Amino acid sequence: MKTQKLGIIGLGHVGEHVLAYASQSELFGEIVTIDINEDKAFGEALDQRHATGLFTRNNINIYQGNYSNLKDADIIIICATYVYDDGRILADRQALIGDNASIIRDIMRQITEVTQEAILIFITNPADTVTFMAASEFNYPQERIMSTGCMLDTARFKQILGEHYGVDPKSVSAYMIGEHGYTAVPVLSKTTIAGIPYEDLPNHFPDVEHWDADTIQEKVVQSAYEVLNAKTGVTNAAIGQVAFELAKAVLLDEKAIFSVSTTFTEGEYGASAPLCFATPTVVGRNGWEKRFIVPLNDWEEAKMQTSIDSILANIELAKESK
Amino acid sequence: MKTQKLGIIGLGHVGEHVLAYASQSELFGEIVTIDINEDKAFGEALDQRHATGLFTRNNINIYQGNYSNLKDADIIIICATYVYDDGRILADRQALIGDNASIIRDIMRQITEVTQEAILIFITNPADTVTFMAASEFNYPQERIMSTGCMLDTARFKQILGEHYGVDPKSVSAYMIGEHGYTAVPVLSKTTIAGIPYEDLPNHFPDVEHWDADTIQEKVVQSAYEVLNAKTGVTNAAIGQVAFELAKAVLLDEKAIFSVSTTFTEGEYGASAPLCFATPTVVGRNGWEKRFIVPLNDWEEAKMQTSIDSILANIELAKESK
Amino acid sequence: MKTQKLGIIGLGHVGEHVLAYASQSELFGEIVTIDINEDKAFGEALDQRHATGLFTRNNINIYQGNYSNLKDADIIIICATYVYDDGRILADRQALIGDNASIIRDIMRQITEVTQEAILIFITNPADTVTFMAASEFNYPQERIMSTGCMLDTARFKQILGEHYGVDPKSVSAYMIGEHGYTAVPVLSKTTIAGIPYEDLPNHFPDVEHWDADTIQEKVVQSAYEVLNAKTGVTNAAIGQVAFELAKAVLLDEKAIFSVSTTFTEGEYGASAPLCFATPTVVGRNGWEKRFIVPLNDWEEAKMQTSIDSILANIELAKESK
Amino acid sequence: MKTQKLGIIGLGHVGEHVLAYASQSELFGEIVTIDINEDKAFGEALDQRHATGLFTRNNINIYQGNYSNLKDADIIIICATYVYDDGRILADRQALIGDNASIIRDIMRQITEVTQEAILIFITNPADTVTFMAASEFNYPQERIMSTGCMLDTARFKQILGEHYGVDPKSVSAYMIGEHGYTAVPVLSKTTIAGIPYEDLPNHFPDVEHWDADTIQEKVVQSAYEVLNAKTGVTNAAIGQVAFELAKAVLLDEKAIFSVSTTFTEGEYGASAPLCFATPTVVGRNGWEKRFIVPLNDWEEAKMQTSIDSILANIELAKESK
Repeated sequence: MKTQKLGIIGLGHVGEHVLAYASQSELFGEIVTIDINEDKAFGEALDQRHATGLFTRNNINIYQGNYSNLKDADIIIICATYVYDDGRILADRQALIGDNASIIRDIMRQITEVTQEAILIFITNPADTVTFMAASEFNYPQERIMSTGCMLDTARFKQILGEHYGVDPKSVSAYMIGEHGYTAVPVLSKTTIAGIPYEDLPNHFPDVEHWDADTIQEKVVQSAYEVLNAKTGVTNAAIGQVAFELAKAVLLDEKAIFSVSTTFTEGEYGASAPLCFATPTVVGRNGWEKRFIVPLNDWEEAKMQTSIDSILANIELAKESK
Repeated sequence: MKTQKLGIIGLGHVGEHVLAYASQSELFGEIVTIDINEDKAFGEALDQRHATGLFTRNNINIYQGNYSNLKDADIIIICATYVYDDGRILADRQALIGDNASIIRDIMRQITEVTQEAILIFITNPADTVTFMAASEFNYPQERIMSTGCMLDTARFKQILGEHYGVDPKSVSAYMIGEHGYTAVPVLSKTTIAGIPYEDLPNHFPDVEHWDADTIQEKVVQSAYEVLNAKTGVTNAAIGQVAFELAKAVLLDEKAIFSVSTTFTEGEYGASAPLCFATPTVVGRNGWEKRFIVPLNDWEEAKMQTSIDSILANIELAKESK
Repeated sequence: MKTQKLGIIGLGHVGEHVLAYASQSELFGEIVTIDINEDKAFGEALDQRHATGLFTRNNINIYQGNYSNLKDADIIIICATYVYDDGRILADRQALIGDNASIIRDIMRQITEVTQEAILIFITNPADTVTFMAASEFNYPQERIMSTGCMLDTARFKQILGEHYGVDPKSVSAYMIGEHGYTAVPVLSKTTIAGIPYEDLPNHFPDVEHWDADTIQEKVVQSAYEVLNAKTGVTNAAIGQVAFELAKAVLLDEKAIFSVSTTFTEGEYGASAPLCFATPTVVGRNGWEKRFIVPLNDWEEAKMQTSIDSILANIELAKESK
Repeated sequence: MKTQKLGIIGLGHVGEHVLAYASQSELFGEIVTIDINEDKAFGEALDQRHATGLFTRNNINIYQGNYSNLKDADIIIICATYVYDDGRILADRQALIGDNASIIRDIMRQITEVTQEAILIFITNPADTVTFMAASEFNYPQERIMSTGCMLDTARFKQILGEHYGVDPKSVSAYMIGEHGYTAVPVLSKTTIAGIPYEDLPNHFPDVEHWDADTIQEKVVQSAYEVLNAKTGVTNAAIGQVAFELAKAVLLDEKAIFSVSTTFTEGEYGASAPLCFATPTVVGRNGWEKRFIVPLNDWEEAKMQTSIDSILANIELAKESK
């Protein structure tokens, strides 16, 4: 008789927020925090445990642990990242990939020694690349490995459109696909508000400027940068909630469609080699189930090619770093 | 300094569920229950008040009151309905309209004496008709009057499609418009899953039977009847949550787009006279704001005509009953 | 890989509310409704399933089922009760016990055929008696059988004191023990507000009337009756939330102390024979763990004797009805 | 027609967590972030706004603002603190008081220019001292000014006892009073588990070591330091939830009893001069209402004297810094 168990690996800015949202939910009776900085993992767990002294909190068991504690974990969220001595996270892509590739390989080695059952959710960047490494270099059930992928990009996209049109982002039907980050593709050809296709919105919102696809793609990236710059290299609040929403869909077997990143091997969207990228995907208790390769317009197809090429290039860097 | 206040008028099966969901939220510090059966209003309030003795409940003030208590209400949800001596709710439309018209006029007379500020949410059936009466026969700000309209029909539509395609209904972008109930129109031309138009779904779900519009409209009505028949005349659980979701969008000024029913006077969708019907509508702290008259295909247009005619006929019955 | 599963047996007024609160939580991915009136079980499940079409709802699987669906249930909440042809629930104790004893035996027979793992929560009245029957007549792990016992009585007691003293019931530390219902004993000797013993409250609340133990015991019973009378025989809102709070403590392994009813065999509180009664009990993932036999004052001891005698008399009636 | 509005002043580690918990609630339709580091206030607001693109989030309006935006705020939570150039928060008390006194005076000057209505919740340390400055040096309604005081110390105290005795901290009735931090006093004479007085617990937990008051006071301080040290000077997760729980009690008018810190002028607990300290206090929509001066045993009285003297000394430092 066990409660549902979450493992969080990496208790930096992101892990701290994942922990915050997971601690307040009813999904987990046990949360294990793991970090090579054991103090950090210990401190975050204890700080949240103090909160169980409040009326508004469930009394769940939150503690600093190690990989053996993950043996019967239901979900493991990986947000570890290489941190330079001065506390800053590196911006240089190539160096980041090399360092994080090594971290992820180390983590996967230790996870696979204790479980093949947990659903693994990767947040560590570059998300698509590290997820592919985890999926391709280790013997772990493929459907149980995924990254939050373009879920955060999608949230930003919907929020930006919602704000622009003056409506709740939940009333915007939209998503981004491809690589998490700079090259993520807003699929405007599949975007609607009140069921109205994006290109017809001017008929219904005559006073709202109609942005083209390039503008929107830029605005999403820019909005991410605005957070990164303002918070000196950190975005953690939204991604923490993204990871929680994904974990909830898994544990409740919701069959939610999220733009998570998973492994493709058959040249989907014209990819020339196996890789991970984000596309609408049905998520449930067993991990990812069905994935949608959606028809794209010319602009989207070109941008998707760019996005896929970017991921493949990163994967090469990761392989070299082995 | 006041907390946010909810008034519930009519504490039958529906009102009881509205109260249940509102009591568990953080939206209201005060909830007033009003019913001509004062015992029922008292009993429901006290039963919920007992629950404030639990750790999981906020200590909010829930009590049986009268219209003077609504003076500073933020939201009033009206679910009163005529109940025959044997406890059954009448199925005959004409008789129901006459009886409920009289009830709603009585309620509106008393509300307008104490406030013009509260957002009024009508659930009482026939919802479009009674909402029109409330909006047209009384001097109350039009944008503060609405019915849950086709929100419940929409929830059923999305749930049925979600179950059929094996995906979370939240991942289905869809709505129904027109009259709440038998004639509500599923707008398949604006329905998507993972952004894929309804008519293209067979490409992505080759094993799932592709229903035509008539079949779907029938299935939604049938699903409602299955609940009604199984629960001997009552549907209350889903509609209670619909009303709560609407109230939340109002109080948090969410600008959510919901298929609520509001007053139209300019021949929208070809209507030959002023009426209330449901169409996608932006909802916020001031009530309804923007409404979308969406382009329809031929089938939808014909069905919408039928739906509008049905409402207009009911409105005539309501006028006669005055 | 399974989600957490709840079974609800008996979908009358109480079961409907248990379902409402459980459906809105994050605890269960699957809820099975079972009732000899299969229509009722079907209708309630479908009504709640419709609500999954709302943004505010998780997409969990709620369906009418049978006992075989309980094979891997985590929690089973039993609220079935004998209902007379005219829909009223019988008030006569002896007849009620005979009828419900037969119902509970039937339910236990079917549960034990499919599982010994689920935590069983009994709400059916007389709660202590039917729980004892379930625990003593069937081969089911004792620590996995309990009734909500005096949790509802405790909630009412705290709510009444909270209202009387003008404070949040969560800030009142108090409980009732013994038999659920008329004879439940408010343990004033262990009751505090802001840590201040009940008898010293007049020093801190000079303007608040100081009730004696008899008055309070009477007020709790009277408050229950006010709901029962006003709602013509039904109390369901608070008890539904009680059952949910208990289920949550189990699934999250909270080690919460609740006044649940469990089996005692060693003459605790002077009982002359084995029975079930409520006393503060630590509840976690394995069911009940530690129980507190608290020192009582003379009044409490006498009342506890009355309460225990009442339960023992009911148990005799239940045995005879076999 | 306005939604409920929260202002957060100071978006450091603590403000970020206050924002996280408030953003996920249903209490506020509008949240304004204010920081002299405008980038930080902007970045935190935008990061949270991105999350409104998720299904699990309400679409509330979160934005970086200035004091004029607080004109109609319902609650203002102040967590600004002096930060040294190297990012560390100063540990030296005297210097911290001088610096934070100046910050708080500046904040109060700006708040009082726009509102006297909002309930002010101070988290900034030393909490009791800055709350006293705010209450005594500015013309703001006294009952609308409070600090979280010993709410966090109380949460830790309950969590530590809960863990030690193997029970849910919500089942521990206990609190700390006096100064937030090192000198806070655990009131063991008013502490109970399952209603059993602390000194009698060995009878019910024979295998659990019975700590004396000095040990417990030390353990609470030590637990705070363990977080502070492990997180290099930061505790934010639990205090963020404390502030949210307090704000909820205010907005819902819960009349919760919390150990918040407020102004006393009549020599309560033997204080030789006006000051702020924490003691059980009824909190509602108008701020703090009733306060309990609880009888203490000798140990508690002596410790309370120490605690009060410490606050008074800090107040002197704050006055000098003017």
